[in-house]
Amino acid sequence: MNSTVTELSKTGLSTAQSLDVDAYMNQLGRQARAAARVVARADTAQKNAALLLIADAIDAHRERITLANEQDLAAGRQKGLDNAMLDRLALTAARIDTMIEGLRQVAALPDPVGEVTDLRYRPSGIQVGKMRVPLGVVGIIYESRPNVTCEAASLCLKSGNAVILRGGSESIHSNQAIAECIATGLKAAGIDAHAVQVVATTDRAAVGKLITMPEYVDVIVPRGGKSLIERISADARVPVIKHLDGNCHVYIDEHADEQKALQIAINAKTSRYGTCNTMETLLVAEGIAGRVLPALGEAYRQAGVELRACPASIGLLPGAVPATEADWETEYLAPVLAVKIVADLDAAMDHIARYSSAHTEAIVTEDYSRAQRFLREVDSSSVMVNASTRFADGFEYGLGAEIGISTDKLHARGPVGLEGLTSQKYIVLGNGQVRG
Amino acid sequence: MNSTVTELSKTGLSTAQSLDVDAYMNQLGRQARAAARVVARADTAQKNAALLLIADAIDAHRERITLANEQDLAAGRQKGLDNAMLDRLALTAARIDTMIEGLRQVAALPDPVGEVTDLRYRPSGIQVGKMRVPLGVVGIIYESRPNVTCEAASLCLKSGNAVILRGGSESIHSNQAIAECIATGLKAAGIDAHAVQVVATTDRAAVGKLITMPEYVDVIVPRGGKSLIERISADARVPVIKHLDGNCHVYIDEHADEQKALQIAINAKTSRYGTCNTMETLLVAEGIAGRVLPALGEAYRQAGVELRACPASIGLLPGAVPATEADWETEYLAPVLAVKIVADLDAAMDHIARYSSAHTEAIVTEDYSRAQRFLREVDSSSVMVNASTRFADGFEYGLGAEIGISTDKLHARGPVGLEGLTSQKYIVLGNGQVRG
Repeated sequence: MNSTVTELSKTGLSTAQSLDVDAYMNQLGRQARAAARVVARADTAQKNAALLLIADAIDAHRERITLANEQDLAAGRQKGLDNAMLDRLALTAARIDTMIEGLRQVAALPDPVGEVTDLRYRPSGIQVGKMRVPLGVVGIIYESRPNVTCEAASLCLKSGNAVILRGGSESIHSNQAIAECIATGLKAAGIDAHAVQVVATTDRAAVGKLITMPEYVDVIVPRGGKSLIERISADARVPVIKHLDGNCHVYIDEHADEQKALQIAINAKTSRYGTCNTMETLLVAEGIAGRVLPALGEAYRQAGVELRACPASIGLLPGAVPATEADWETEYLAPVLAVKIVADLDAAMDHIARYSSAHTEAIVTEDYSRAQRFLREVDSSSVMVNASTRFADGFEYGLGAEIGISTDKLHARGPVGLEGLTSQKYIVLGNGQVRG
Repeated sequence: MNSTVTELSKTGLSTAQSLDVDAYMNQLGRQARAAARVVARADTAQKNAALLLIADAIDAHRERITLANEQDLAAGRQKGLDNAMLDRLALTAARIDTMIEGLRQVAALPDPVGEVTDLRYRPSGIQVGKMRVPLGVVGIIYESRPNVTCEAASLCLKSGNAVILRGGSESIHSNQAIAECIATGLKAAGIDAHAVQVVATTDRAAVGKLITMPEYVDVIVPRGGKSLIERISADARVPVIKHLDGNCHVYIDEHADEQKALQIAINAKTSRYGTCNTMETLLVAEGIAGRVLPALGEAYRQAGVELRACPASIGLLPGAVPATEADWETEYLAPVLAVKIVADLDAAMDHIARYSSAHTEAIVTEDYSRAQRFLREVDSSSVMVNASTRFADGFEYGLGAEIGISTDKLHARGPVGLEGLTSQKYIVLGNGQVRG
């Protein structure tokens, strides 16, 4: 934890030529904690002004951002990053436009902070209610997409939180250029620029420190691959809002409308392969399998989806290979689908309870009671009737924006928007009451 | 973790003469996980029937419970437990009445499970809403009060959770007697008796295992002293709902109604000394100190409260001793009070931000804008205007019951009732919609 951090001098965030990472992160933490009080009491107009001024600053410094991004891309090519990675890293003009547009959209969203609900008189004469308040300081750890810097900062700011952002080392120059625009906007709006801080070192020890300083950081939101998130969750000393896997299921019930079943099962798998809300296992009631699986098999074949089928379904799916136990557990993120015929709703829900990652599951049925049971009994962050799992998304749900998706059970479940970055405290309004 | 557990054979929960604690806790965990699905889908009538049948079983087995409790008390006396400890351990007839009454009250509370809110159509045609659902399996770790066994079990059951209870070793026989009554009631109501399991070993390794099996336990609620809770929080691998300290403040603003200020400051300190919502530091604006402190000093003197005063206030408080830095940080849980004169509202909020444990803070003021600022800006689980901090309590807030108080920021803050033992998942109602 005592590594030398030479990059700091280039960033303008610190004038030290070399610095102890531990001390540096403590400094960011202290600054964030102090700024959190400032941004928590900033009113909606001030926060919106800051968001729009940040958008203006990014617009005004496109060239500076593009140059910094080219520096990262050149270094990435030299390091031999693959094309997918370089694509994620690239800040094209269109992506800069999207960042600016995103800031303006977040400014237009309702402010969750200060909302008072359930204010009621109690027999003692006091009024008791709940007030929505920011969490405090959010730590965001992400990989190579530099546009996350702007997006995550905007959501934390709007929800009244201070944020410490730690992006992938490949995007360090892009992130610093964006950070400067954010600081410009915050200062112009009269908000402590420490409300948004981007970690200015690529030293990995900074991540270890960020997730273990509960005195300064209230929650960590990791965004990236499963291994990153697992590592962070294992080591964090503060709560983590996360999802690890999206092993999503569609269950076609015996009483499904066949047309809806086909539409949903095709869309849930084939509309995008790499997203966490993509179906990975299709469960089909035995009473309807003969009517839907041949058509589905043909549709998947045309789409180039490889099928891994249980013994009962393999005969209905020309070209399918036998599924193994591992298939029920796998989030393929690829044109591969596991297929299983189950006896009935209970067998489907048992399979889901055993193998699901608690992200999103859907039933296709016209049977009212089965729909009700599925909704009630399936313990996932999103449970759907007659809709594609691909709808599990903050924008589709109307959150306006999404900082991530949570498959944990406490605090936020499912897509996490501004509200998930807040909590509720109790407020009591009295008139001199004392307790007997 | 391989200790021999000889008590298990006496409890009826296991017939093994000796058992590996790790294996035993894994067994409880598996059973709890399976029972959680059963109790999650039990309807309100069935859960209420179980609660009333448990109450009946306790009523019918008073003698059995009393005998078991006398066994614990005798062992406690032999071990040299102090009187306060023995008092907490004792199950008098009145306390058994309270347990029975508590079960009936929980049966009468509204069922939080299944509540659907915010169900709205989205432009895609799907309806998106939230459904309140149980957390799953709750682990409760508590000290010597055996009545907690019943109270915690009733709240977990009503909120649709399975629970694993681990009480203090001094109350093992009392807890097992209560556990048998609970099992009787659950079976009579047709609910898997593993929905409520009481750990039948006093081996401390059981606690270590209970808090580190995320595959079986979703949340831990520790109830007891600060050192117990700190130990559990440090080692837990699952979320913990907890509060460590109740270092509560009352701030008497310059524009306070003097009569309300006296009432509240006296009640907040003197109505009970040992509770977490008792005021530990009194902050007074310098503009009103000369008018309220002499009368308050006299009232505290009569009540036998020792005062630890800042240099500015000590002259107004005959008999007070000088406060040290440690006094601002201390939850006395005793007839001791720290007193400090501050310049104004900002100085009071700065002191609170620095020293408070984020439990409960109150302002006494008739000034609208200052009341609003205090409510908005003080970052504690309960924030009050013109009311005694002693109101921070699940019953006073109308929760009907309380499993604990949380001073953490995620999930539940403040008194935690049935709703705090649940979370919300998203539900989507469609009609065949797919994502474009």
